[in-house]
Amino acid sequence: VNLTLDPALLSSYFPFWNQLTSTQQDLLVKNTRQLHFPAGKILHNGSSDCIGLLLVISGELRAYTISDEGKELTLYRLFEHDMCLFSAACILNSVSFEITVSTVEESSILHVPADLYKQLMRENAAVANYTNELMASRFSDVMWLMDQIMNKKLGARVAAFLIEESTLHHSVTLHMTHEQIANHLGSAREVITRMLKYFQREGLLQLSRGVIHIKNLSSLEEIAAPSLR
Amino acid sequence: VNLTLDPALLSSYFPFWNQLTSTQQDLLVKNTRQLHFPAGKILHNGSSDCIGLLLVISGELRAYTISDEGKELTLYRLFEHDMCLFSAACILNSVSFEITVSTVEESSILHVPADLYKQLMRENAAVANYTNELMASRFSDVMWLMDQIMNKKLGARVAAFLIEESTLHHSVTLHMTHEQIANHLGSAREVITRMLKYFQREGLLQLSRGVIHIKNLSSLEEIAAPSLR
Repeated sequence: VNLTLDPALLSSYFPFWNQLTSTQQDLLVKNTRQLHFPAGKILHNGSSDCIGLLLVISGELRAYTISDEGKELTLYRLFEHDMCLFSAACILNSVSFEITVSTVEESSILHVPADLYKQLMRENAAVANYTNELMASRFSDVMWLMDQIMNKKLGARVAAFLIEESTLHHSVTLHMTHEQIANHLGSAREVITRMLKYFQREGLLQLSRGVIHIKNLSSLEEIAAPSLR
Repeated sequence: VNLTLDPALLSSYFPFWNQLTSTQQDLLVKNTRQLHFPAGKILHNGSSDCIGLLLVISGELRAYTISDEGKELTLYRLFEHDMCLFSAACILNSVSFEITVSTVEESSILHVPADLYKQLMRENAAVANYTNELMASRFSDVMWLMDQIMNKKLGARVAAFLIEESTLHHSVTLHMTHEQIANHLGSAREVITRMLKYFQREGLLQLSRGVIHIKNLSSLEEIAAPSLR
């Protein structure tokens, strides 16, 4: 049985592939495995756990924290081509928080052992810089989420506006641009787009050019609650 | 006038100094400046601002967010030898959040231009890996803070316990170990230590071996409020 993966597959998933030496490429080819998981499988739990880097080929992963009372808070979601860094938290000495990562649906994953990735990071500035960008991106997700928690109002206002429009036009399919919503709410287009994309990732909306389709009205009403009162 | 800094000073502040090439060391020596700021000076504001890396020689910096209503939330504090990465947010493409950095007290700062640091990061894996650790450390601070916001209880319980002990012994100087507090509150020593250090950074307590000195009782009472009700 030959478990070795096709280098062409790896080169399409690792953005730093062409900046690796051939020895480093060989190491990745020999040690990366493709794994399959059912929906709802916990892949990483807590900071002491260090199964390695996970790269999503298909499916969806969710990273979240669990409070003392068991309440979950989703930090970010990972889709095709996204890399899960904190399942290999041990490669960074300074990570002291605990997150849980699990599959949302049936998923196919590339797995790189933590030790190997750590070695590549030490040896190769391109890998280290890619990791920096990855972490900055997750950091940005978490900062945005914290902002939402501290200033819940905008999410509620956008949700309330969409419900209002839906009621007004007797349809869950709204024909309007993000710019128009921004103008209605006195906000910026970028801010509205980010919020709508967040709603889409959470399964509340489906976005396409000039069209917003409401998929889950009751969840949207829950978010809008403070603004509808 | 010779503005060039002593390489010995720089080598003591940059942990990656010995892993730089002599050309890279020269670049840092020639382009790093020592700056002085009064208390309350805003050094960085928003993600478009990119003054460069700031390394604290003396004094204190504070990184915080400002809500739409002008409410500040302190993310972390930087003391001697700490490096402020997000004042050079432009070196990372994936940073999309806005923070403000200002001096808490009169501060002496080493300033490295953003472009130069970016170049060193691209060229040198040691610099990139140091940056990774730095970001992971700030990420951990923010995750801890978010946990506090979501689960306010432990902070309130620790504060309430300290006030109770202070009232009981008619003194703002408490003789007890972190272990003892953890046992009283059914928590772990590490968790209590982190909370007490946070209170210390916020100026509420002064910690020394086996002794907790309450410096700001009224702020502590405010934090304890939900637990005292």
